[in-house]
Amino acid sequence: MLELGRDAREAARILALAPTAQKNAALKAMAQAIRESAAKIIVANQADVSAAKSKDLKDSFIDRLTLTPARIEAMAKGLEEIAELPDPVGATLSEWTRPNGMKISRVRVPIGVIGIIFESRPNVTADAGALCMKSGNAAILRAGSNGFRSSTVIAEALQQGLDAAGLPKACIQMAPTTSRESVGEMLSGLGGAIDVIVPRGGKNLVARVQAEARVPVFSHLEGVCHVYVDKAANPEMAREIVLNSKMRRTGVCGSAETILIDRAAAARNLKPIIRTLIDAGCEVRGDADAQAADTRVKSASEEDWSTEYLDAIVSLKVVDGVEAAMAHIAKYGSQHTDAIVSDDAATALKFLNEVDSAIVLHNASTQFADGGEFGFGAEIGIATGKLHARGPVGLEQLTTFKYQVRGSGQIRP
Amino acid sequence: MLELGRDAREAARILALAPTAQKNAALKAMAQAIRESAAKIIVANQADVSAAKSKDLKDSFIDRLTLTPARIEAMAKGLEEIAELPDPVGATLSEWTRPNGMKISRVRVPIGVIGIIFESRPNVTADAGALCMKSGNAAILRAGSNGFRSSTVIAEALQQGLDAAGLPKACIQMAPTTSRESVGEMLSGLGGAIDVIVPRGGKNLVARVQAEARVPVFSHLEGVCHVYVDKAANPEMAREIVLNSKMRRTGVCGSAETILIDRAAAARNLKPIIRTLIDAGCEVRGDADAQAADTRVKSASEEDWSTEYLDAIVSLKVVDGVEAAMAHIAKYGSQHTDAIVSDDAATALKFLNEVDSAIVLHNASTQFADGGEFGFGAEIGIATGKLHARGPVGLEQLTTFKYQVRGSGQIRP
Repeated sequence: MLELGRDAREAARILALAPTAQKNAALKAMAQAIRESAAKIIVANQADVSAAKSKDLKDSFIDRLTLTPARIEAMAKGLEEIAELPDPVGATLSEWTRPNGMKISRVRVPIGVIGIIFESRPNVTADAGALCMKSGNAAILRAGSNGFRSSTVIAEALQQGLDAAGLPKACIQMAPTTSRESVGEMLSGLGGAIDVIVPRGGKNLVARVQAEARVPVFSHLEGVCHVYVDKAANPEMAREIVLNSKMRRTGVCGSAETILIDRAAAARNLKPIIRTLIDAGCEVRGDADAQAADTRVKSASEEDWSTEYLDAIVSLKVVDGVEAAMAHIAKYGSQHTDAIVSDDAATALKFLNEVDSAIVLHNASTQFADGGEFGFGAEIGIATGKLHARGPVGLEQLTTFKYQVRGSGQIRP
Repeated sequence: MLELGRDAREAARILALAPTAQKNAALKAMAQAIRESAAKIIVANQADVSAAKSKDLKDSFIDRLTLTPARIEAMAKGLEEIAELPDPVGATLSEWTRPNGMKISRVRVPIGVIGIIFESRPNVTADAGALCMKSGNAAILRAGSNGFRSSTVIAEALQQGLDAAGLPKACIQMAPTTSRESVGEMLSGLGGAIDVIVPRGGKNLVARVQAEARVPVFSHLEGVCHVYVDKAANPEMAREIVLNSKMRRTGVCGSAETILIDRAAAARNLKPIIRTLIDAGCEVRGDADAQAADTRVKSASEEDWSTEYLDAIVSLKVVDGVEAAMAHIAKYGSQHTDAIVSDDAATALKFLNEVDSAIVLHNASTQFADGGEFGFGAEIGIATGKLHARGPVGLEQLTTFKYQVRGSGQIRP
């Protein structure tokens, strides 16, 4: 593993200076290699899937693990799409001249080496590897044991693409082991070789990474996202945003888990919103007010307010205005994504300014919490930490900067 | 200590939303309170200084610890200067509209709670506390034992100023203990209360913070800064930049520790540069070429190339052009600040692009590595880490951002 780190560091030095055209050529060659390896990938994946089935893993897990010809083609297309995204490296972020004539530029540069620890989805190998590479970073991928065979074949194809474009294969490397210790080694930073870790997987993985990592981590443990329906909300819009925020896809981190309804307009909003959710197949767990409004509402426990269901279940509470809504979010939320529905501009601005989450929305669904929806192109994840990357982590968030100072002989008095 | 963390978190919530005028009023009131407390500060400082003297601490240490009426006035003026700096909080960093009409803004917000661990200089109490406060962050200051009495009185004055402006006193708190364990508690993050740690002190302190911190750290362990004199350098400019980079102040992190001279112009540059340094009272430790050029040059050991002298000593080496210079810097440098002197624009650009340091300069002294010289106003330190803050850490670097999304009922298909 330490050798992996050294090779990555060396490759990162070359990759940091690689021209955009070379990186894009590598991405296209990688896509081609994936297509050409499709049969080999399927064989490896079938071995992974049958091993997983013999372990009695959940159907949803098996589904995430399974690759089909269509999914392999989507992976190749994803690589080509990353080639189309603008290269963040080298951009001048700001530039100014000092009174002594020195010109200072803040210029975007790659971070260096990014470690990705992931679980079942083999396509993360291609997505994450390619995003790191396009942003000028070397990637070290540590795949979960269940998808190891599939990921290995995919990583080989990626390395073929790198090689074809004249870039070091070590720009994207896979850890050769799935031992639990190898995660620990990654989290220790491989002797200073890893600059940042991105975990991709379930809550247990992310919790371990956050607890043990000795290097910075871009991650979110959970998305306990809220929709607050203000008294000044358009009831029809509120119903639609609540329904979409919860039910469009229940398994994504940006799905809403708690609906807060302003008491001042509860008469207007409470029943229709509950009915809409239940009609759509959502279980509603509410406070006494919600239960009084609809007998089908189950009783919410204290634990419900901080639970990320990732399922067709929602908690629902009546609150005394925006202040109470914000206090609830501060207490139970996960600083991920929270929305207000209101036609009152001042109340909306208060919510946008005061709720301390990576993403705050006014009159829009929480399901927009996604790098693609932000216009970032592909994303490697969503971060709820406050430093460096916050919210969707796309190509730009995988870079840092340096200061270039141009003088004409200035010395400091 | 945990209570300190909780109080800081609560104060941070209020401070994050405080208007600029209120924060500036607090800074001015803090300056006033410092002036009014001058006599009390001197008494406390005398107790600190005489205790330190009885411990046989170094003169330079005693000097850093000692406060005079002039230094107290400078501290008060420093607070007033921070009041004059622009408030970074609330600025819109970028803004765009999505095809579906959603308007996304990236808005600057405070980080939250910043922990500062410092050693002898009592003025850090005021400087660091004020920078955190102006950028909307609560500060928890952990002073070293030698300056504890002085810092305590200064912190009281700061809290008076906060109180006078209607802000919570817990915006700036001092740890009530100087135990070694209290540093450990800070480094563990006080139960999630601290978002980032800034160490201010010597190498031992910074090394301990970097090794043990469980939260992000803005710091640099050392500044092994280089000046590379290219064959295309103007010899007179090269001499002046080398002299200034090394000798203007030898104790700052941006002072040069190693001079690299291009062999292709060694005949022109080597002797004058060595002579200038030695004439200015600098000990020169060089390779065989340097020793051959001037018999007063001592022999450099392997260790010299990675040593931060912080003194009137420099290591000096003849290298084969810019590639060899950059390879030396990559091997021995500390990614802090490095400079090239050259009249060849292409060579200079190569150096600026390829040297992986927080600050890279062309034809200017490394001693410009300073937030004030960058136009940032005061700085809390210089960071060589790659994430979030890199280079001088001023008010802007003490902030983060969030995304505010304004819609008109958008739901995600």
